[in-house]
Amino acid sequence: MEDNAKVLILMGSDSDLPVMEEAAKALKNFGIAYRMTVASAHRTPERAIKLSSEARGNGIEVIIAGAGAAAHLAGVLAAKTTLPVIGVPIDATPLNGMDALLSTVQMPGGIPVASMAIGKAGAKNAGIFAAEILSIKYPEIADRLAAFRKDMAEKVDEKAKKMEANC
Amino acid sequence: MEDNAKVLILMGSDSDLPVMEEAAKALKNFGIAYRMTVASAHRTPERAIKLSSEARGNGIEVIIAGAGAAAHLAGVLAAKTTLPVIGVPIDATPLNGMDALLSTVQMPGGIPVASMAIGKAGAKNAGIFAAEILSIKYPEIADRLAAFRKDMAEKVDEKAKKMEANC
Amino acid sequence: MEDNAKVLILMGSDSDLPVMEEAAKALKNFGIAYRMTVASAHRTPERAIKLSSEARGNGIEVIIAGAGAAAHLAGVLAAKTTLPVIGVPIDATPLNGMDALLSTVQMPGGIPVASMAIGKAGAKNAGIFAAEILSIKYPEIADRLAAFRKDMAEKVDEKAKKMEANC
Amino acid sequence: MEDNAKVLILMGSDSDLPVMEEAAKALKNFGIAYRMTVASAHRTPERAIKLSSEARGNGIEVIIAGAGAAAHLAGVLAAKTTLPVIGVPIDATPLNGMDALLSTVQMPGGIPVASMAIGKAGAKNAGIFAAEILSIKYPEIADRLAAFRKDMAEKVDEKAKKMEANC
Amino acid sequence: MEDNAKVLILMGSDSDLPVMEEAAKALKNFGIAYRMTVASAHRTPERAIKLSSEARGNGIEVIIAGAGAAAHLAGVLAAKTTLPVIGVPIDATPLNGMDALLSTVQMPGGIPVASMAIGKAGAKNAGIFAAEILSIKYPEIADRLAAFRKDMAEKVDEKAKKMEANC
Amino acid sequence: MEDNAKVLILMGSDSDLPVMEEAAKALKNFGIAYRMTVASAHRTPERAIKLSSEARGNGIEVIIAGAGAAAHLAGVLAAKTTLPVIGVPIDATPLNGMDALLSTVQMPGGIPVASMAIGKAGAKNAGIFAAEILSIKYPEIADRLAAFRKDMAEKVDEKAKKMEANC
Amino acid sequence: MEDNAKVLILMGSDSDLPVMEEAAKALKNFGIAYRMTVASAHRTPERAIKLSSEARGNGIEVIIAGAGAAAHLAGVLAAKTTLPVIGVPIDATPLNGMDALLSTVQMPGGIPVASMAIGKAGAKNAGIFAAEILSIKYPEIADRLAAFRKDMAEKVDEKAKKMEANC
Amino acid sequence: MEDNAKVLILMGSDSDLPVMEEAAKALKNFGIAYRMTVASAHRTPERAIKLSSEARGNGIEVIIAGAGAAAHLAGVLAAKTTLPVIGVPIDATPLNGMDALLSTVQMPGGIPVASMAIGKAGAKNAGIFAAEILSIKYPEIADRLAAFRKDMAEKVDEKAKKMEANC
Repeated sequence: MEDNAKVLILMGSDSDLPVMEEAAKALKNFGIAYRMTVASAHRTPERAIKLSSEARGNGIEVIIAGAGAAAHLAGVLAAKTTLPVIGVPIDATPLNGMDALLSTVQMPGGIPVASMAIGKAGAKNAGIFAAEILSIKYPEIADRLAAFRKDMAEKVDEKAKKMEANC
Repeated sequence: MEDNAKVLILMGSDSDLPVMEEAAKALKNFGIAYRMTVASAHRTPERAIKLSSEARGNGIEVIIAGAGAAAHLAGVLAAKTTLPVIGVPIDATPLNGMDALLSTVQMPGGIPVASMAIGKAGAKNAGIFAAEILSIKYPEIADRLAAFRKDMAEKVDEKAKKMEANC
Repeated sequence: MEDNAKVLILMGSDSDLPVMEEAAKALKNFGIAYRMTVASAHRTPERAIKLSSEARGNGIEVIIAGAGAAAHLAGVLAAKTTLPVIGVPIDATPLNGMDALLSTVQMPGGIPVASMAIGKAGAKNAGIFAAEILSIKYPEIADRLAAFRKDMAEKVDEKAKKMEANC
Repeated sequence: MEDNAKVLILMGSDSDLPVMEEAAKALKNFGIAYRMTVASAHRTPERAIKLSSEARGNGIEVIIAGAGAAAHLAGVLAAKTTLPVIGVPIDATPLNGMDALLSTVQMPGGIPVASMAIGKAGAKNAGIFAAEILSIKYPEIADRLAAFRKDMAEKVDEKAKKMEANC
Repeated sequence: MEDNAKVLILMGSDSDLPVMEEAAKALKNFGIAYRMTVASAHRTPERAIKLSSEARGNGIEVIIAGAGAAAHLAGVLAAKTTLPVIGVPIDATPLNGMDALLSTVQMPGGIPVASMAIGKAGAKNAGIFAAEILSIKYPEIADRLAAFRKDMAEKVDEKAKKMEANC
Repeated sequence: MEDNAKVLILMGSDSDLPVMEEAAKALKNFGIAYRMTVASAHRTPERAIKLSSEARGNGIEVIIAGAGAAAHLAGVLAAKTTLPVIGVPIDATPLNGMDALLSTVQMPGGIPVASMAIGKAGAKNAGIFAAEILSIKYPEIADRLAAFRKDMAEKVDEKAKKMEANC
Repeated sequence: MEDNAKVLILMGSDSDLPVMEEAAKALKNFGIAYRMTVASAHRTPERAIKLSSEARGNGIEVIIAGAGAAAHLAGVLAAKTTLPVIGVPIDATPLNGMDALLSTVQMPGGIPVASMAIGKAGAKNAGIFAAEILSIKYPEIADRLAAFRKDMAEKVDEKAKKMEANC
Repeated sequence: MEDNAKVLILMGSDSDLPVMEEAAKALKNFGIAYRMTVASAHRTPERAIKLSSEARGNGIEVIIAGAGAAAHLAGVLAAKTTLPVIGVPIDATPLNGMDALLSTVQMPGGIPVASMAIGKAGAKNAGIFAAEILSIKYPEIADRLAAFRKDMAEKVDEKAKKMEANC
């Protein structure tokens, strides 16, 4: 945990860590301080509510919430803050994450949650999307995002050259 | 609202009333006092939490919660009570209630919600299931349930006779 | 099998035991006596019907039924008793349990089945939900449920501390 | 009802008649006597079981069962007879008949149900399929089926000519 | 292949054999002669059509067709015979057999295919269902089916006793 | 029907015409001659097979096939020609065209069908895609496609201006 | 269009306006200037790319993109900017918006799109979520969001009172 | 890469190669020159657009595009060319390729993409379908396709004989 955390990463269970650490890695990559912890919408609702209610006052600017099954965490957090809340649906049941996706994305009008893709790709994108949000306020993050994009494109180009050489 | 309410019926929006009143009708039919009101997991989370936390102390013995879309209401209530919570998924989006069904039924281990079918059939059955729960404590409700079953079977028999006569 | 069983756990096949024993564990945890056995809606319908019809007379107060595929067991039991019947859909075919879920939860109006989540989480919750039902009649079970909740929340808090210390 | 009925058409509710009468029409078309009535797997299980158990003894050679939602009727009937049971899933809930289809077709190994398509097309085909079954025993029905096929093909040819003339 | 085959088992690819041999086993169990071979609706349509067109003339009374993906085999066979055609959807793509199921069961009105469950359970039931069809003409098969049912029920009872003894 | 038809449009039933005429309109728009008629994979398989087998010899260069439900038509045609076959899944059952889509697109390796979107958009695109195929041989069609694209883009620009003016 | 627009609302077709104006209404409600226009990922890709590439330079801080069917618009825009892009899946085909939802939300790792719910609820929430993003930079928007939440909760309370009075 | 390439095979990521090389193998089998490389709709949109815009001028006559998740590649390429674009949905997320399928096939009217099946079968068929397109211009490819079909049918016949001999 960092005192100057701008992003709060919450997950419904510590078993979600292998997925959610993709969000943390992305934030680290952009030099963004974050706090990552566990809070369950169902088993520790008070804790979840407290973390969300106090987030803006504590300097948090974006909340990322990952949960599987009937994934209520992002919605419960969103109900207690006006900060942007990003939801990461986790594939944790036989239904391949479709349950978590619909529980996260189909929020009724009034209280938005921004859903990412199911699983690790979604967690990584949650970190990047948090950086994009912060980039409207912190120009240095916009610069890092531009560099990240350039780097990503170059890697694709290299792979393309390699594939063309081999085929 | 009745002072001696044993069942608390909550819905996420007053637009859910045409569905949820099927639960109320079923309870009335069994002579069971209930309280029915609106409480949103997202727009009025404190109200939802308060109603659930205080339910057992107020004499409530079963909670019925109906909600559509990313239907978090039943799960949020279940997190704050050890009373049985029955969820009714409501068909309120283009996804035909599949979103509400998965958000209601796929609760992770530890905090159960008992899901009924989507829509009016589910709301009616929520009322009957509440009566079945109460029947383990109140023998007169068991008797009324038995009579209800008998009546239902007789109606099917009548319809069968009518169909056979016409065909 | 215990003579004073309050909960009857049935499953469609003995291959369902690894899932359904989660329900049994939960009941044991709350000190609730149960009887667990096999009864198929299709291969032994008379046995299923007999167990259900006689359940209330035998002191049973809640029935838990687990089945996969076209999971008719819970519905067939519910048709022969006015006790609360809890269904656990089991993931036993290539369709990931969606077939068992819809066969269990989409009961038509008149004969309710309370569906839990697919698989082990659902079986565990079936046991807890049975305890919640019994808690309206047996105050000591309400106390044990409260303690269980507290314990569960504390475990989340510990995991949260551990994660925050490591990140 | 006809005394010499060879096919028994059952439906879970009289509201299923507009769908199931397609099966009756098809049978009439082939000159096959049938009995059509209502029997619910959940509301009148004894009646359903009795009809199925006694069917072979009463001269019935094929059973057709139509039901919607968690459609258990065909499975419950199949459990009590070794006659071929044809299931017609009916679109009776917001899930467009997918619930009825999976409840009907996903029968576990040992007790088969032959599922037709959802709704009227399925009911019509149930009648034709019953005729195809009977055709292995009654050559005149095989002849009528061949004539029906020829007639159907001719109608398509006529429509093809008409379309080609108009376009 | 047996000269007196009453059932023709076809599959779209020899890779379907591990599934479809469940149908063959079931038929053997009832002493019913069958012929089992490969015929693809897409790669060898003439062969499929020939086998189907000539089936009744060759003494075949039931056709069983197994196929995966866009499973057209059963429908193509049904188009060329008035014998009962039983379809077995096979799980052969990433979509878990849902593609094969809908391609098999959703036949338009006029040309029925009787769909079984996806995979081995469905193949086994196809064999049993073929026996049920034949049982209306051959009383000895009806007797064997009755014995099979009794045996199946007894096995469940044994497993039930064993589970109750152990729990 | 035109003697010099380069595209053959087939549909499983004349009730599919309101959808499939979108393909015809698109072809007309590009000045491409076509023949449009009815041929059912199930009710008139010989006719479908004949049309497909003889298509290349008759100067046809692309086949478009529209069908609903278990949509086997495109696959059956593809089995009898090496011309490109474009399939249009039609929404003709309670399953919203998902059955027709999977029956059309999930063709096993060896016999391709090119699937378009469900319904009218797919039929229109089938006509345009046929033009794109023909454009590799007929340069004038490539020119018309380029003009069509330019026109389409200009219409979007006009609508954009209108919206911006009004908002 | 406003010169000082902070939010750019794009939609794939002018037929999406009845849905997307919910986003505009929400932004107006928070006093946030926006520009709303049409740009298709497929029919006018250059226009879409230009609008996205130049957005940050033009003072835009959030992009909202609504599209139906294979909804590529949000992804195409996100590929050309590091501003946060919010996607609104629109129900525009027989698949009830499930196609648009998956096309929008399942973005691969590297280029995030924040998906809202399908349809009007999602469009409204896109406007509110844009406001939440802007609230981290503009404190007055945070205040308006807090007031909006309070107002929303009060309306629920009023409806609750009304319902309790009537029941 | 070959200078005289007639088919351009693109994939969104080099991790898609094990799937997409099935398309290359099919083309090789028909003696058709192709170019295969990587181009991402999201990470290298300019590259994708350039390859597509210049394809016809460079002698390309068919484009094959494979992508997983929210698979926008085929649509983005189709927007910039009037050549036929064949899309191969790849199973690259927990949703089993359903996301890639709907993102590929559900193209709105005006800009067609021809979708193949999910995964390797679809990639193989994309290669064969490209050959079918080219066969309308290059008679030798039509001959090779006819030989391929004959060979495929003979292999099925051999397997049929083998199975009949063994059973």
